[in-house]
Amino acid sequence: MAAAPLTPCGTEDEEESPPPSTPSQAAPREEHREQHHYNRDAPPGFPPAMAAEDVAAVEAVLGYEFADKSLVELALTHASFYFPYRTGDTYERLEYLGDAVLTCLVSREVFRTYRTLPPGPLTRLRAANVDKEKLARVAVGRGLHRFLRHKALQLEGQIHVFVEEMGKYPVHSNGLLDPPKVLSDIVESLIGAIYSDSNFDQEKVWRVFRNLADPLISLETLGKHPVSELFEFCQKTRRGVKIVKDAWDKSLKVEVLIDGELVGSATYAQKKEIAQNRAAKAALDKLKETIGQTQSESAGRGISEPFNELDIAGTLKCQ
Amino acid sequence: MAAAPLTPCGTEDEEESPPPSTPSQAAPREEHREQHHYNRDAPPGFPPAMAAEDVAAVEAVLGYEFADKSLVELALTHASFYFPYRTGDTYERLEYLGDAVLTCLVSREVFRTYRTLPPGPLTRLRAANVDKEKLARVAVGRGLHRFLRHKALQLEGQIHVFVEEMGKYPVHSNGLLDPPKVLSDIVESLIGAIYSDSNFDQEKVWRVFRNLADPLISLETLGKHPVSELFEFCQKTRRGVKIVKDAWDKSLKVEVLIDGELVGSATYAQKKEIAQNRAAKAALDKLKETIGQTQSESAGRGISEPFNELDIAGTLKCQ
Repeated sequence: MAAAPLTPCGTEDEEESPPPSTPSQAAPREEHREQHHYNRDAPPGFPPAMAAEDVAAVEAVLGYEFADKSLVELALTHASFYFPYRTGDTYERLEYLGDAVLTCLVSREVFRTYRTLPPGPLTRLRAANVDKEKLARVAVGRGLHRFLRHKALQLEGQIHVFVEEMGKYPVHSNGLLDPPKVLSDIVESLIGAIYSDSNFDQEKVWRVFRNLADPLISLETLGKHPVSELFEFCQKTRRGVKIVKDAWDKSLKVEVLIDGELVGSATYAQKKEIAQNRAAKAALDKLKETIGQTQSESAGRGISEPFNELDIAGTLKCQ
Repeated sequence: MAAAPLTPCGTEDEEESPPPSTPSQAAPREEHREQHHYNRDAPPGFPPAMAAEDVAAVEAVLGYEFADKSLVELALTHASFYFPYRTGDTYERLEYLGDAVLTCLVSREVFRTYRTLPPGPLTRLRAANVDKEKLARVAVGRGLHRFLRHKALQLEGQIHVFVEEMGKYPVHSNGLLDPPKVLSDIVESLIGAIYSDSNFDQEKVWRVFRNLADPLISLETLGKHPVSELFEFCQKTRRGVKIVKDAWDKSLKVEVLIDGELVGSATYAQKKEIAQNRAAKAALDKLKETIGQTQSESAGRGISEPFNELDIAGTLKCQ
């Protein structure tokens, strides 16, 4: 299927009609053609087109050459980019398509890789490979975010924070990071663009994504969500756990009580869920540290229960 | 991919053991073996295999001939079917795969059919074509439910109720019906089976589903959810609306208050959401009836505002 035209509906006729009274309405395509086929100066009132060398750079990162180059620009255009010009098409439709085909292809991949795995773990594995953080890591890891066309003032700062923090978690933070949605959006929209441009060839899409997202998260590298891990830990060690979130609306803080005692807390203003996950992680770290000390103290005295049962994310080994 | 074997691991030795004390456990497969080549007797402790003529009948409904016939049986086997035999594989992995590929293909279909439609309506259109009710209607409409292998006692009754009620809504009830999940599951699992059997050929999958699900729900036939419709209606006619759900846990009833007055209610024990949707629908019907009367009374007096603005699911036309 040809891409949705970047110019609004009903413009085909206008190209052959006399120039409109506002010159901005019909001119852009004409000028671009002269410079680089598809990359022309914007007429008054329209934002600039993506440079041909940028289009080529994105194609090189993806390992895919587009038949319809305008799809690259469309896939990288955020709604804010149009300010102060007249608005136009954004990446959202391509993102919708890309999300659907990625979910399908990653489902297929885990289905055929793990031939007896039940749907529950299959779903968790799929999610880890197509969720906001994994795709944001792909965007940043491959430098695709540098080509994003936007004018959202706070976005560069948010991306910078994410890039700084993602280094702490080599594979996936499992809910501790809060990447800007636009980063995962553009991976999905570029994938949607390839699906559309290739006449819906899922194998071409898969080759691109398999390469971009390498290494995929496997059962071996799939981490645990800190809240699940905390509850499992406390169940095994017979501790009572309570996550207190009620005050977040005012304090922006979530606290974790273990047997009634404050063991971990975290403050995060943007999302309560992230604050909760970080509080759970803080509590887990504290508990593991305490157990480590207890185990050192009791070493040689044969007191290892219930620690023998624990193997939390491979970090806690029985002595 | 070859299907996961229907017989559990480690049973080969047992095939040579003497028949079980309860003759009913082994008999069904015995008859099948003589009739059809791939359909052999079940060894002691195993449930009967699907009859070859049933497999062929399902293939005829789907318009697809399987290379691996065992996938048909697997796609139609519910966990309850194994009672009182030893448990084995069920349709759940195929359902997981089928759900993913269906979502992708219906996303693609609405994406290329409606070339300028934003993601919001695209998502609603997709949902209407792959949700539990649409797929349950497909299962019943094509008679696929007759081949379901299960022993869930209450299921036949639930299916019967759904079949009775779906006739009231020619296209989709938009949240008023509560189809048994197993009906949509087997459409997804059969689609997953075709995707797997065809070496992941999405075009073959699409041909089957496009035919099974015909007619697909389009923008023209897409109804409104009764709760959204009620809120829109009340906003346009400047009425205050409140849906009271708090007492459902005890009374199983949801009530709709319009300007403080009880206008509609519904009782549904299994799901609060269905009770809510039915209460909203009851309130809407009542409001439309009232407006109809008001309009008749005021006909000829030029009082049509704010009813002129309304066109609710095509049922309310201005006089």
